[in-house]
Amino acid sequence: MDGRVAEAPLPGATTSVEAPVEPVGRSERKHRAILEAAQEMFLAGGYLGTNMDELAARSRVSKQTVYKHFGSKEALFIELVTSMTDAAGDRVHYEVADPVEVDDLAAYLESYADRQLEIVMTPQLLQLRRLVIGEVARFPELAEALYEHGPKRAIGTLAAVFERLTKGGLLRVDDAIAAAAQFNWLVMGEPVNRAMLLGDIAIPTAAERRAQVRAAVRVFLAAYGAR
Amino acid sequence: MDGRVAEAPLPGATTSVEAPVEPVGRSERKHRAILEAAQEMFLAGGYLGTNMDELAARSRVSKQTVYKHFGSKEALFIELVTSMTDAAGDRVHYEVADPVEVDDLAAYLESYADRQLEIVMTPQLLQLRRLVIGEVARFPELAEALYEHGPKRAIGTLAAVFERLTKGGLLRVDDAIAAAAQFNWLVMGEPVNRAMLLGDIAIPTAAERRAQVRAAVRVFLAAYGAR
Repeated sequence: MDGRVAEAPLPGATTSVEAPVEPVGRSERKHRAILEAAQEMFLAGGYLGTNMDELAARSRVSKQTVYKHFGSKEALFIELVTSMTDAAGDRVHYEVADPVEVDDLAAYLESYADRQLEIVMTPQLLQLRRLVIGEVARFPELAEALYEHGPKRAIGTLAAVFERLTKGGLLRVDDAIAAAAQFNWLVMGEPVNRAMLLGDIAIPTAAERRAQVRAAVRVFLAAYGAR
Repeated sequence: MDGRVAEAPLPGATTSVEAPVEPVGRSERKHRAILEAAQEMFLAGGYLGTNMDELAARSRVSKQTVYKHFGSKEALFIELVTSMTDAAGDRVHYEVADPVEVDDLAAYLESYADRQLEIVMTPQLLQLRRLVIGEVARFPELAEALYEHGPKRAIGTLAAVFERLTKGGLLRVDDAIAAAAQFNWLVMGEPVNRAMLLGDIAIPTAAERRAQVRAAVRVFLAAYGAR
């Protein structure tokens, strides 16, 4: 909107007393501080309700520095969406060895689904999701970023697992992407929908998560299990 | 859009001079006109972006009449959510005889799911959903009304069907509500989520709907079919 600044450092383009050459660590710390302030402010106040002057003040940097790091308010929000969803995805998909015995399959899928539910069903990620859904008409790019880094990535990663398990003879899956989407929504559909509409009070307890996950895996394996 | 006309001619029913006793038909027409204007304005401008003076003007009634009919802006919005979701639900759940032969079961479930997808995946209902999700923090009652009259009602009605089919020996369902929620999200999870985030461009075509529905019913029957 206003005050966008070149990405490369401009000689003499200091607002107050910035050092001429910043050590990498310092620039990274600023980057992180801005993202942290952005997370707090966007999630609490919404996209339009977040003021960039205030955001700079809360990050303890100049507004110019915010724009130097992120280019625009929209780009900053997209970076926030990307970093929050990627971090969640990394935690869901952390390296676990594929099961080799059919007897381990249900436990493997239940553990994956339980981790996914626990990580996705946090107040911050739910609020991010509500926020970008509410702004789809005005800012389609925000929701698209969430879609790409959230559900699309999760389903793609899971599809690759299902293909390996099918090759290994533990699953019988033709269309791995379709099967991964079914698994994803068998697990997540009801709790995510409830929390979208009823708020954080609908976040499942560990016991509720466990029941949800077991029932989902049972249905999935009835359709796709090799035996 | 405008120029709504009386269904039955009302003697002396002019807009400016209100008769001391209104015939029922006239009051109902005003009620409907207000709801129609509310649907247009809320869906286009959001809850906060809708101005009640403008809404009265567009409904061709006084602001006082709007409040006489609906009490408050929030109550009007809740009535809109309720009437839109109930009308959609009625169209999904219109009376169809239960199948009696196991061979008819898949076709019955596919037809139900296809109707549900077609009715839910319309721009108006999707936009209503985005709108109330975006306002959950500020106006939890709006989203709660959508939840009660939308997914909760749909799942409850479907659970009753599954119970009857289990008694009739066509399904084997223990927890009918849980099974109905699974069916619901097997069918709706992926397309609704895509359309929430990617916009109306993600509304499935008839052929895509059909493929989605067949795959969902196949998985459901693998887990819950009696044979």
